[in-house]
Amino acid sequence: METKNDQTLSRRQLLKMAGVGGAGLLLGAGGVGTLFGTGVVSAKGSKAATAQPNADILPFYGTYQQGIITPQQDFIYFAAFDIIGKKQSDVRGLFEKWTAAAARMTQGETAGDETNNQHLPPTDTGEAIGLTPSKLTLTFGVGPTLFTKDGSDRFGLASKRPSQLADLPAFSADELQEEWSGGDIGVQVCANDPQVAFHAIRNLARIARGTAVIRWSQAGFQRTEKAAAQPGTARNLMGFKDGTGNPDVTDANAMNDVVWVQPSESKAWMTNGTYMIVRRIRMRIEEWDRSTLKDQEATFGRSRNSGAPIGGTDEFEKLDLEKKDASGKPLIPVDSHVALAHGDGKVRILRRSYSYTNGIDSKTGQLDTGLFFVCFNRDPLKQFVPMQTRLSKSDRLNEYIVHVGSAVFACLPGAAPGGFIGQQLF
Amino acid sequence: METKNDQTLSRRQLLKMAGVGGAGLLLGAGGVGTLFGTGVVSAKGSKAATAQPNADILPFYGTYQQGIITPQQDFIYFAAFDIIGKKQSDVRGLFEKWTAAAARMTQGETAGDETNNQHLPPTDTGEAIGLTPSKLTLTFGVGPTLFTKDGSDRFGLASKRPSQLADLPAFSADELQEEWSGGDIGVQVCANDPQVAFHAIRNLARIARGTAVIRWSQAGFQRTEKAAAQPGTARNLMGFKDGTGNPDVTDANAMNDVVWVQPSESKAWMTNGTYMIVRRIRMRIEEWDRSTLKDQEATFGRSRNSGAPIGGTDEFEKLDLEKKDASGKPLIPVDSHVALAHGDGKVRILRRSYSYTNGIDSKTGQLDTGLFFVCFNRDPLKQFVPMQTRLSKSDRLNEYIVHVGSAVFACLPGAAPGGFIGQQLF
Repeated sequence: METKNDQTLSRRQLLKMAGVGGAGLLLGAGGVGTLFGTGVVSAKGSKAATAQPNADILPFYGTYQQGIITPQQDFIYFAAFDIIGKKQSDVRGLFEKWTAAAARMTQGETAGDETNNQHLPPTDTGEAIGLTPSKLTLTFGVGPTLFTKDGSDRFGLASKRPSQLADLPAFSADELQEEWSGGDIGVQVCANDPQVAFHAIRNLARIARGTAVIRWSQAGFQRTEKAAAQPGTARNLMGFKDGTGNPDVTDANAMNDVVWVQPSESKAWMTNGTYMIVRRIRMRIEEWDRSTLKDQEATFGRSRNSGAPIGGTDEFEKLDLEKKDASGKPLIPVDSHVALAHGDGKVRILRRSYSYTNGIDSKTGQLDTGLFFVCFNRDPLKQFVPMQTRLSKSDRLNEYIVHVGSAVFACLPGAAPGGFIGQQLF
Repeated sequence: METKNDQTLSRRQLLKMAGVGGAGLLLGAGGVGTLFGTGVVSAKGSKAATAQPNADILPFYGTYQQGIITPQQDFIYFAAFDIIGKKQSDVRGLFEKWTAAAARMTQGETAGDETNNQHLPPTDTGEAIGLTPSKLTLTFGVGPTLFTKDGSDRFGLASKRPSQLADLPAFSADELQEEWSGGDIGVQVCANDPQVAFHAIRNLARIARGTAVIRWSQAGFQRTEKAAAQPGTARNLMGFKDGTGNPDVTDANAMNDVVWVQPSESKAWMTNGTYMIVRRIRMRIEEWDRSTLKDQEATFGRSRNSGAPIGGTDEFEKLDLEKKDASGKPLIPVDSHVALAHGDGKVRILRRSYSYTNGIDSKTGQLDTGLFFVCFNRDPLKQFVPMQTRLSKSDRLNEYIVHVGSAVFACLPGAAPGGFIGQQLF
């Protein structure tokens, strides 16, 4: 009675056959609609289609992990996992399984080989059937607690912990909550579709059963590429452009300087890796919405409309912190967010943040909404930490935000086909 | 020093000038990029553009409110508000202000006239600057507590409560939580962009300050239209197609039968209105993911892959609950979700649900994820309530879901230009 399932095709097969060269090609293409319904497609169609490049699929294997210098997708689903297994081989085995599933899902396949055995749980949870890969990326990192927890070398990895991977110091403005902080493993999933992103984390959690559990998770969004009337920097929920000062991800020298761990500056297994810091930053938007435009612009140090530094006209113009107004005061306040984040301009990070909204905070009765800050840097102790120390002390923005979650992860280098993420560590 | 702001243009002006006839026209259109940067556009370009129909903008005014029989957008942001004002005129005034803002935002304008006065809070929170309207709709409804609360006729409206608008009965499988239930006013915002949807609710909350506060809110998503390799029914987070049995929204007779309140069947002010029911349905996906494909399909009564009724081949084929297997048992289990929802097939509702994910439930440690069920019906007592009574008692799905939130709202008829939503009531 379930003969339909004998005809099941993997998502990749279907997408290949449909010749998905960027999802745009398919929208409204009625002739393709029959594919899922019947499973009947000529081999010829399949061969022709696979020759086309697919703008909607990013490669999984490579020197670096994807999702770091990848142009930012529209959605994130982030999850921190805790290992409940007891042995290093449990962790290693998990990364082997996760790598296989991640490689498949990013290429538009189901998380596992579909057996279509009615008497087994499905090897894929199904909610991404019929969806394109939507530039899905999965980025894996390991937290300090994977190496040492409560003083214990739980998996025999303590000697492999890089000095750069340590709990962040307590910043003065922090109000961190356990429920949004830490984790033995952090996985950043990004995609141009929220269901595709959710599907990936959910299947990782399913595959991890008995070895790891989700400690906390957060979905995030930015404006969709489709809705942006012009390409450019997305706005955060305070209405300001966010990410203007980012280094150019297409500049290999800048990425080596800012993001990628270089040989012999850390443990060998971290070469071509990076450090990911995530901060769940709640915005007090009710207070923000009562402040004047002047206050808001002085807080960021930028014009809300154009994104230009105060006194300037172009979003991307060089920040000139020396400029003074008629009375001799700095045009861009010294305690503005942009001035403090910039510092002396020598130290940069790669920001890759999203907005989040989780309904009402039952403790405060206000919207639980803000910025899910994600950044990558080669050495947190030299990059993120000094920057955040300045911001935490003096940033005008602190009146309107509060950091409620925090975690740091060492993102492993990429995997080669046949290998797995974490191979250099375990 | 803030000369940029003198050049501020409304979102609508910019969109008109850009000739946004469906966002697709603009993607990658580099020539348009200068619009926001310089504010310099020829009047000629503007005139030419306004003559084009704009596929990305839905009309606001009309006989019915939008967002009901509107083809489902990709995102929802729902909020329930409680009135803290004391007088009926407070409520009336709120609806007047909300209508004005909603009419503007749906057409791509800011929520209020931009004064660009640096010494006032902005009349729009800014996060939708530069974004297309993304088929934004706002749908307003009033809950039973607006008429009577704790036995009190708080706003002199008690005599205007339609008998169809009453608290839903307690269903046997309910585990409702106060924090996800009720509300004096319910506002469903839908759009093809999550930031545009959020922006609308956030500005309503800002405008309501002193008169109403958000009681609870929930963001939701379905797969984006862009990611769907073929058009068709979206899947819920159990991996099954959701909404297959919906009536055809283009069939005016069906909509009059299922959705729209007809003259003299309720209070006069409800004519051309409808009743909206929202249920926050948590999925126990960890348990679901451990169940076999056979169990899952028997639970829904449908094939996961095709969406067809068990024993059938096509998603949209007629449900035949009389079909038996070789041993004489019904092919579609009598306690399957589809069998119970269908009943005798005479009573239907219009479902318009989304998926949601809110991280981890701190009480259970499991993903707080599921279905944000939204439906519209002419008479809840004859449509939703009998259906949900059957489901709550016997649905196999109850092993895997739990209703944690519930609310019912009388959705007002549409407004004419110059009028406001709620005019017939107040």
